[in-house]
Amino acid sequence: MCAVVGVYGTLEAAKCVRRALSAALQHRGQESAGIAVSDGTDIRVKTVLGYVKNLTDETLLELLGYMAIGHTRYSTAGKSRIQEAQPLWTDCLHGQVTVVHNGNFVDQRRERSLMMQLGSKFDTTSDTELFLHLYCRSNRSKLKDRLIEVGKRLQTAFALIVMTQDKLVAMRDPWGFRPLMVGKVGGTTVIASEDCAFRQLQMMTGSRVSELRDVEPGEMIIVDDDGVHSDIVFHADHRLQCVFEHVYFSRPDSKTFGLHVEQVRRNLGRSLASVRKIEADIVVPIPNSGIHAGIGYSEASGIPIEWALVRNQYVGRTFIAPIQSDRENSVEEKLLPIVHLMRGRRVILVDDSIVRGTTMHKIVSMVRNIGEAKEVHVVISCPPSISPCFYGVDTPRRKELLAVSHADEICEVIQADTLTYNTLPNLLAAVAPHQDLFCTSCYTNKHPVLEMLGLNQDGLPERRRTVIPLKPSQG
Amino acid sequence: MCAVVGVYGTLEAAKCVRRALSAALQHRGQESAGIAVSDGTDIRVKTVLGYVKNLTDETLLELLGYMAIGHTRYSTAGKSRIQEAQPLWTDCLHGQVTVVHNGNFVDQRRERSLMMQLGSKFDTTSDTELFLHLYCRSNRSKLKDRLIEVGKRLQTAFALIVMTQDKLVAMRDPWGFRPLMVGKVGGTTVIASEDCAFRQLQMMTGSRVSELRDVEPGEMIIVDDDGVHSDIVFHADHRLQCVFEHVYFSRPDSKTFGLHVEQVRRNLGRSLASVRKIEADIVVPIPNSGIHAGIGYSEASGIPIEWALVRNQYVGRTFIAPIQSDRENSVEEKLLPIVHLMRGRRVILVDDSIVRGTTMHKIVSMVRNIGEAKEVHVVISCPPSISPCFYGVDTPRRKELLAVSHADEICEVIQADTLTYNTLPNLLAAVAPHQDLFCTSCYTNKHPVLEMLGLNQDGLPERRRTVIPLKPSQG
Amino acid sequence: MCAVVGVYGTLEAAKCVRRALSAALQHRGQESAGIAVSDGTDIRVKTVLGYVKNLTDETLLELLGYMAIGHTRYSTAGKSRIQEAQPLWTDCLHGQVTVVHNGNFVDQRRERSLMMQLGSKFDTTSDTELFLHLYCRSNRSKLKDRLIEVGKRLQTAFALIVMTQDKLVAMRDPWGFRPLMVGKVGGTTVIASEDCAFRQLQMMTGSRVSELRDVEPGEMIIVDDDGVHSDIVFHADHRLQCVFEHVYFSRPDSKTFGLHVEQVRRNLGRSLASVRKIEADIVVPIPNSGIHAGIGYSEASGIPIEWALVRNQYVGRTFIAPIQSDRENSVEEKLLPIVHLMRGRRVILVDDSIVRGTTMHKIVSMVRNIGEAKEVHVVISCPPSISPCFYGVDTPRRKELLAVSHADEICEVIQADTLTYNTLPNLLAAVAPHQDLFCTSCYTNKHPVLEMLGLNQDGLPERRRTVIPLKPSQG
Amino acid sequence: MCAVVGVYGTLEAAKCVRRALSAALQHRGQESAGIAVSDGTDIRVKTVLGYVKNLTDETLLELLGYMAIGHTRYSTAGKSRIQEAQPLWTDCLHGQVTVVHNGNFVDQRRERSLMMQLGSKFDTTSDTELFLHLYCRSNRSKLKDRLIEVGKRLQTAFALIVMTQDKLVAMRDPWGFRPLMVGKVGGTTVIASEDCAFRQLQMMTGSRVSELRDVEPGEMIIVDDDGVHSDIVFHADHRLQCVFEHVYFSRPDSKTFGLHVEQVRRNLGRSLASVRKIEADIVVPIPNSGIHAGIGYSEASGIPIEWALVRNQYVGRTFIAPIQSDRENSVEEKLLPIVHLMRGRRVILVDDSIVRGTTMHKIVSMVRNIGEAKEVHVVISCPPSISPCFYGVDTPRRKELLAVSHADEICEVIQADTLTYNTLPNLLAAVAPHQDLFCTSCYTNKHPVLEMLGLNQDGLPERRRTVIPLKPSQG
Repeated sequence: MCAVVGVYGTLEAAKCVRRALSAALQHRGQESAGIAVSDGTDIRVKTVLGYVKNLTDETLLELLGYMAIGHTRYSTAGKSRIQEAQPLWTDCLHGQVTVVHNGNFVDQRRERSLMMQLGSKFDTTSDTELFLHLYCRSNRSKLKDRLIEVGKRLQTAFALIVMTQDKLVAMRDPWGFRPLMVGKVGGTTVIASEDCAFRQLQMMTGSRVSELRDVEPGEMIIVDDDGVHSDIVFHADHRLQCVFEHVYFSRPDSKTFGLHVEQVRRNLGRSLASVRKIEADIVVPIPNSGIHAGIGYSEASGIPIEWALVRNQYVGRTFIAPIQSDRENSVEEKLLPIVHLMRGRRVILVDDSIVRGTTMHKIVSMVRNIGEAKEVHVVISCPPSISPCFYGVDTPRRKELLAVSHADEICEVIQADTLTYNTLPNLLAAVAPHQDLFCTSCYTNKHPVLEMLGLNQDGLPERRRTVIPLKPSQG
Repeated sequence: MCAVVGVYGTLEAAKCVRRALSAALQHRGQESAGIAVSDGTDIRVKTVLGYVKNLTDETLLELLGYMAIGHTRYSTAGKSRIQEAQPLWTDCLHGQVTVVHNGNFVDQRRERSLMMQLGSKFDTTSDTELFLHLYCRSNRSKLKDRLIEVGKRLQTAFALIVMTQDKLVAMRDPWGFRPLMVGKVGGTTVIASEDCAFRQLQMMTGSRVSELRDVEPGEMIIVDDDGVHSDIVFHADHRLQCVFEHVYFSRPDSKTFGLHVEQVRRNLGRSLASVRKIEADIVVPIPNSGIHAGIGYSEASGIPIEWALVRNQYVGRTFIAPIQSDRENSVEEKLLPIVHLMRGRRVILVDDSIVRGTTMHKIVSMVRNIGEAKEVHVVISCPPSISPCFYGVDTPRRKELLAVSHADEICEVIQADTLTYNTLPNLLAAVAPHQDLFCTSCYTNKHPVLEMLGLNQDGLPERRRTVIPLKPSQG
Repeated sequence: MCAVVGVYGTLEAAKCVRRALSAALQHRGQESAGIAVSDGTDIRVKTVLGYVKNLTDETLLELLGYMAIGHTRYSTAGKSRIQEAQPLWTDCLHGQVTVVHNGNFVDQRRERSLMMQLGSKFDTTSDTELFLHLYCRSNRSKLKDRLIEVGKRLQTAFALIVMTQDKLVAMRDPWGFRPLMVGKVGGTTVIASEDCAFRQLQMMTGSRVSELRDVEPGEMIIVDDDGVHSDIVFHADHRLQCVFEHVYFSRPDSKTFGLHVEQVRRNLGRSLASVRKIEADIVVPIPNSGIHAGIGYSEASGIPIEWALVRNQYVGRTFIAPIQSDRENSVEEKLLPIVHLMRGRRVILVDDSIVRGTTMHKIVSMVRNIGEAKEVHVVISCPPSISPCFYGVDTPRRKELLAVSHADEICEVIQADTLTYNTLPNLLAAVAPHQDLFCTSCYTNKHPVLEMLGLNQDGLPERRRTVIPLKPSQG
Repeated sequence: MCAVVGVYGTLEAAKCVRRALSAALQHRGQESAGIAVSDGTDIRVKTVLGYVKNLTDETLLELLGYMAIGHTRYSTAGKSRIQEAQPLWTDCLHGQVTVVHNGNFVDQRRERSLMMQLGSKFDTTSDTELFLHLYCRSNRSKLKDRLIEVGKRLQTAFALIVMTQDKLVAMRDPWGFRPLMVGKVGGTTVIASEDCAFRQLQMMTGSRVSELRDVEPGEMIIVDDDGVHSDIVFHADHRLQCVFEHVYFSRPDSKTFGLHVEQVRRNLGRSLASVRKIEADIVVPIPNSGIHAGIGYSEASGIPIEWALVRNQYVGRTFIAPIQSDRENSVEEKLLPIVHLMRGRRVILVDDSIVRGTTMHKIVSMVRNIGEAKEVHVVISCPPSISPCFYGVDTPRRKELLAVSHADEICEVIQADTLTYNTLPNLLAAVAPHQDLFCTSCYTNKHPVLEMLGLNQDGLPERRRTVIPLKPSQG
């Protein structure tokens, strides 16, 4: 879970990248941020821990060039060192190269081990470094061939933007796990994780957005002085777009995988109302994650919605020092309960997920004790998570997941009167007519790609390595 | 527009004050923050520019004592020096004293001049310093008598908390301009501008809130080792509670002047729908200020509400340095327009006020150009402001107010299709049955208190000073 | 012990003040720093905790004007609040006024109490605030008369620079306790605690220094658009210039009270050699305080000097945060012992004073254990301190002074082989031919000024107040 | 020019490394600092830009382990990114490894290119990364064999400390270009660039230093649970110890390459007096670099020394932010001229080098204009630099060197009356009887090692690569 951005063709490239990261894509990662810029001959990189804002105006002055890429990182799978922050930079036989990555290479432990056998040194714990090793070791002389070679080796989920001294390249895995969009803002080519980034650049520059579309699964787009070149270079039998982008991760104003996120969430809320008939007085969405499902739930159930929990706009992580940024404010400081709307009432709380349960327990307790609600029913817009994700979403390992460890007792843990999850069929219906294009592994614990690769859930070979079933590239 | 807090009777007094300021009252001021604490013999004060968070855990360790007061300041009427930050501290004949103030002494220019004639030195440009001068110059030996003497001299709006080495005192002007509440959290006495502060302390300590009520207009409450003592010591013919607290300033989860803020705002939205019949497809509240009026408007008009503008939770002022805190993020970064909800539709935008018009112009433009709305109608839940406030709300001077300078052209300035304000009768109806208790000067430009004091709108004598018509105190 | 600076007649006034404070006068105080500037109609003030460097370039941009004053404070007699930092600013009947002060008002506790009886509020614990109260309460209409009135009331030690909106005034008490110099750098009038400040401004501006002289004891210099006006306005029978300025406080490159500081220190070293005949191999000055006395000692004794202790130029206080600035580096990190120069030798260590003994004990131990010296003899260039100073030097109270509490045992405490102090006659000889002009109270515990004022050593009335024996002013 | 430290066998390993870097070795580099620590199974690294102090107490808490290495970097040959800061960390086939390096691999451009051909990715511009690539690519299973293989390939100057998860290794090139010492502080094994680090740890821990000696040229020392193992594993025909360590780089209290630095500098001053007979009144050393040569010059010439330039102890680089650390204080703020000691006199200024001439010009100007000296003669304790260094000292490239570009005009450039350099024979005499063991390339522009390697002065092959004339290792 990260954001990637690329901009080609403006001397404000770094500024555009920062605006897109800061105003549109910050929700995809707050652990670190970084920008790399090229002036055609040299690449400069700046990375910071924490929010994009830490990339100050002063920093921008040093980032001169006509193309740039940027990244925000969600969490630290590896060591919490600034060295892990992307863009990663490398100098090699093929010149300088930088990369930003959203996704996960499920095969990384095996690949890392293989590369080490060949004498590679790994300077980070990030799987993204694998990409750079493969790139440097490639002996293909053409950039495109080199990236195809690398892309075929990388398993499995990637939305990558690569920048060399004079080229910007976007590439997306053939299953389409992670979103990536391309378009123009005025005459500038922009690539970004979500389309809200394009609207920010439209507002910043005053130029119109045009030719906005998904980077296709398996597509590689190369942007350079000769223009924009595109090919489908990776192939798979089917698509596995991450449904969690709609449930949780994308912004509600984005159109991801061709569907309006707001609409999908409202659909989820609507179908959720049919799962169990609850006698209640009001529906209260938990902001901001439950807002749109809450609206749908109210519409379908006929139970009036009340905005009885308001988000405190003054509470947020501090930006000052990395070490302080860890100290999150408690949920009690984040939500303002409007007591008279809840007092003595039967309340349905709507949210998009329960991961470990501690936060939901605090909210239920707040609604009951401070809000003086008579009953508190919790409804969740998606099915219970029963598997970690191996394709780029940083969910806890399976045994920690509340839905697995306490399946029957979650309701008691969070001390709600009832707890209702949505169903998998409802989830698929919410993304209709594209339901066949989505990955739902986190709700099914079925991992066809892992099986195909002969990997167990630790990313290690299960039995023996199977042939990688990528079709031959046409490119 | 400031927040005040006082806590008596816990060794965590400073921590309680910080929690109340930070999690409950930060919306009342972000310019500076401060805490004073007393251990019975000595008073310590810490003030910072910017957010309450800048009062770090390290700072709290130095603030030991069993009673404390705190303040957040909305804006810098005077010089932007840390010296202006409250609590103000003074040592004098009567010992050490600190004070926090929400309100405004309308007579301050005359009083300041009078005091200077007597040889007083003014170390700040804050009107609150007047309080301290009067206090130090009083020759009443009893604290209560001294504060009554000072309070009668102070014109006019004040919600004050005073802390000496061993006593905590709350006092409120007899008109009741500014809110102030008192209650207990467990065994600790708490005084605060809004009742949401009490709920934060309940959540922080786990102790229940009891005996929560308004400090009455004209009331003085003294808390010390002997307990809590209360008297009505200032008297006025009528009440002038600030209606702007309900329109804009208080938090929606607060109950201010005996009315639920959320309920008043929804009432305003309801009545607003009757002012003009607008043909439209959707109602879109501008978050967070227009949320509750928007709900009321939709309920009354029957036009469906859509949450097509979402607040970006990652945008906020940075906390690092005072000088950087000035760089506010633009409204375009603060709001996420959900395009497919607005595209091709006739949109009614709901907000609580238009002060200078630049922000509303940007939002209308965003809804039209990014959101692709067909029509954009703006409705404002209260009447046009036509006068600055002299009682503690930091509004621009009269001639700058958009409603005055461009009365007929505002709609054109913000480029809306129509612009509709609420009416004064509707505003009064919204706070019924207490409508007679409110000050509405900002909507009427009638200032009975200034007239009574013989002051013009610059706070200077109009003709000659009239006798101050305070009734003799009973206390 | 503080530094004061004033500059009149250049648009770079604030920059000049900062350069003088930072590059020339920082040694006189590191607790806080501040600058006030006037553009003829308004005064702006900026103060910071810690080093002058914390007054950043950004800060300077806000300090526009053609005259400025500045201050560094040595220590916090009062509360460690930024509010105590000078320049102190006040608005009063006579307009805005700011002041910086080096010295001490010995009568302050009595005066403070008297002023409180009159209703004054004291916002700091600094004695300098007394000046402002007296100034504001004066009803003399002319600035000069006002300042004479105030100056006569202030007891006793002061080197003050006062800045109103359009005038800069220097004034020095009639005994001349604390140093103050005046001169021109190009066309700009400059006032500063030491003459090294003038050389810094010469180097910064490229303009020559001219008319450099002491502000005379009792002199008042007023600088405004009409030029520079001077009068002797305070009178005393004799002078009491602080001898400790030569022993310890002034910079070695300054000429203070008409004598070269370096020369006086070398004289002290020379005479010290005659106090006791020590059989030793080398003389080692403790840098930087013992350098010049060490040279004199070696010259007079014929024992060769070796620079066997070198100061570590990379160790110093950190500038970041006030709270961190307290963590001083240990003496072991500050001094580099050159072992082969001391090994097996009889070493004479030379320094200017021993206050509490802990530091000297560490140095002696370092020379013996790390340096492997055979013997370690300590010689101190001045007599033992036996009294605190009441005239502006922040020495510990009498009972804490090592020379008093352990008079016979100091040598054992610091574990030296011998310990030798200089004598009072030698000290006076070192400042010849001006020996009658100096205050030596800290070495004699005789306080003629306190006696004259009827004060005991706590600054409180001993018996009854005597008439203040100031001659009538001629001014 | 960097510092390296390694500590094995104490739970305060990281604290010891920080103390050694901060209090003893900071002079060897101020660009960045870093510490790596191992607890036997995992390695943690923290690096900062600027001073060692930026490695805060908070940081130390995260650096738990019983062995640690540290580094300060003098300058940024490459890009000024935090990623360049040492220790460099890598994970590879052989496990985790970290390294700190003082020196220079003259062959790095060729080697880097060769490695890139093999597919290596270079993540820094530092030559130290070469070490890691060679290490990771080695297929020797034993650590010692691996490091011997790598060391033989590295050309030429290195003093390296390598830390794996459970071993600490020191290794020094066979010519002995850069210093490295080993010893024990109590039971802890310590390796450091200079012996002053040992004395700091003695003072910090209270434990005695023992077994202190040079790591021998060509020696490898491995420290692990089994103890300390040493072998000579690299061999060369002769030694090439850097004479500039004595002239400039080492601390005066160190004993480097078996000679007391203070003694060598004094010798240089003594012989310098014989180069040219100057009629002058006083010798003034420029602190701190000219102190010891100045003493020697005075002793040999009989002209009295005067400490007429004193270093301002309050001026230094600020520690706050990397970008600010660039703003160096001017030399005018760093030196205090004591005017009366120089006025009207013929002054000999003594320093250790002139690199670009701008600083010396300012000092001569200060002595003449502020100090009012009659004549200013500059004497330099070593011969003119006429070549850059390729073995780890960051001197400007040849054409920028003042002594080359302005050989006849330097004296005019710095506006001295005369300028006198020392001679190469005198330099060699000063390090007698070890003169044959030193590298003097910077004074002769003769580079036998480059010739041997067939490299020109850009580190590129001159003609063809010669066989590397390392003798077979005995180890």
